[in-house]
Amino acid sequence: MPYRETDATRRRAEERRAGLLRAARELVARHGFAGAKITAIAQECGTSVGLVYTYFDNRDELLATVFRESASHELTAVRSATAAADPAAHARLDAFIRTFAGRALRGRQLAWSLLFEPVSPIVEAERLTYRRAYVDLAESILRDGIADGTFAPQNVGLSGAALIGAISESLVGRLNPVGYDGLDALEDAVIVDAIVTFCCRALGASTSVPTSRQETP
Amino acid sequence: MPYRETDATRRRAEERRAGLLRAARELVARHGFAGAKITAIAQECGTSVGLVYTYFDNRDELLATVFRESASHELTAVRSATAAADPAAHARLDAFIRTFAGRALRGRQLAWSLLFEPVSPIVEAERLTYRRAYVDLAESILRDGIADGTFAPQNVGLSGAALIGAISESLVGRLNPVGYDGLDALEDAVIVDAIVTFCCRALGASTSVPTSRQETP
Repeated sequence: MPYRETDATRRRAEERRAGLLRAARELVARHGFAGAKITAIAQECGTSVGLVYTYFDNRDELLATVFRESASHELTAVRSATAAADPAAHARLDAFIRTFAGRALRGRQLAWSLLFEPVSPIVEAERLTYRRAYVDLAESILRDGIADGTFAPQNVGLSGAALIGAISESLVGRLNPVGYDGLDALEDAVIVDAIVTFCCRALGASTSVPTSRQETP
Repeated sequence: MPYRETDATRRRAEERRAGLLRAARELVARHGFAGAKITAIAQECGTSVGLVYTYFDNRDELLATVFRESASHELTAVRSATAAADPAAHARLDAFIRTFAGRALRGRQLAWSLLFEPVSPIVEAERLTYRRAYVDLAESILRDGIADGTFAPQNVGLSGAALIGAISESLVGRLNPVGYDGLDALEDAVIVDAIVTFCCRALGASTSVPTSRQETP
């Protein structure tokens, strides 16, 4: 029964490929893209380096796939939180920032790798695509908020991009595995609140967003 | 006179190295880091590929040197403009943003390459260093502005980083050689003003910075 044999073979191949990607994802989340060496991935899966190269042309292709999968997972989480929030623009913005920053601060190595770790141009191209997707989401919130008077009139393309830049750069010091910023004394909640405040002010928000959860007595 | 001969040899070597770097810099400014191939650099200097490798271990080392030189030149321009401005914090912030954004919009390919072009991890590490230097400069302006009541009280480390993120991401759409942002109809002056407004609002600036030079009749 050659047809069913092909089917089973294909299924086994898919499972192996998924296993390699899973191992690579875990290595990235622990040690960054620099730590996801082909030898380490093969070792985690109990296979040979040669087998990895039967599934992926080269390391860049494998890492670009890992980037896409991990970044897509994060983007989906932010999109879902934004869609589940109170539909008022300021509440959606609040959900956007708190989900993005909160998840980054809970999974620092992965967030560092997705946002800032120096990677090859092929992987970096994936990063630019995902930044664009976040800008698109921010723009849609901005557009609604300007229409209903929540935010000041402004160019949504520029402000959307500026927001994503402000949010992600605010996190670079805290996420950097080497560390450089003297923010170590700040609690994560204080950092997230500060980012929300910065962004709301930047947009000229008329509705004040709750930004001091940690300050309640 | 062996001593003077060594001197002359050294001088010629330094001149050759400087010539290779100059050619590489010009290629980057025209075609990005991806366009600065060793063969093209050698060709511009009328030398062989082999000779380039007697001055630089590999292409990454050469490009990292070009990055440092070009980024240092830009940073010096922004630092000088900030130092030459009215010492009031809002005027220094205004000079910072207008110099950074204005220069980027006048030399788009170079700015794209320095800020966003996907590069190798070794070159990317230089980029992180320069971003840090800009954050340091922003922090010093912020610190003074908070002390004299120009800006709202806030964590300067976070807001300094957020500012640099906001400024540079605002430019990504306009600088991208491929283009993706639908901002083509906006004049450069409008973009710079919008960035100034966004940043001043974000900092809770009490002193309004002139942001509508292009709107005067």
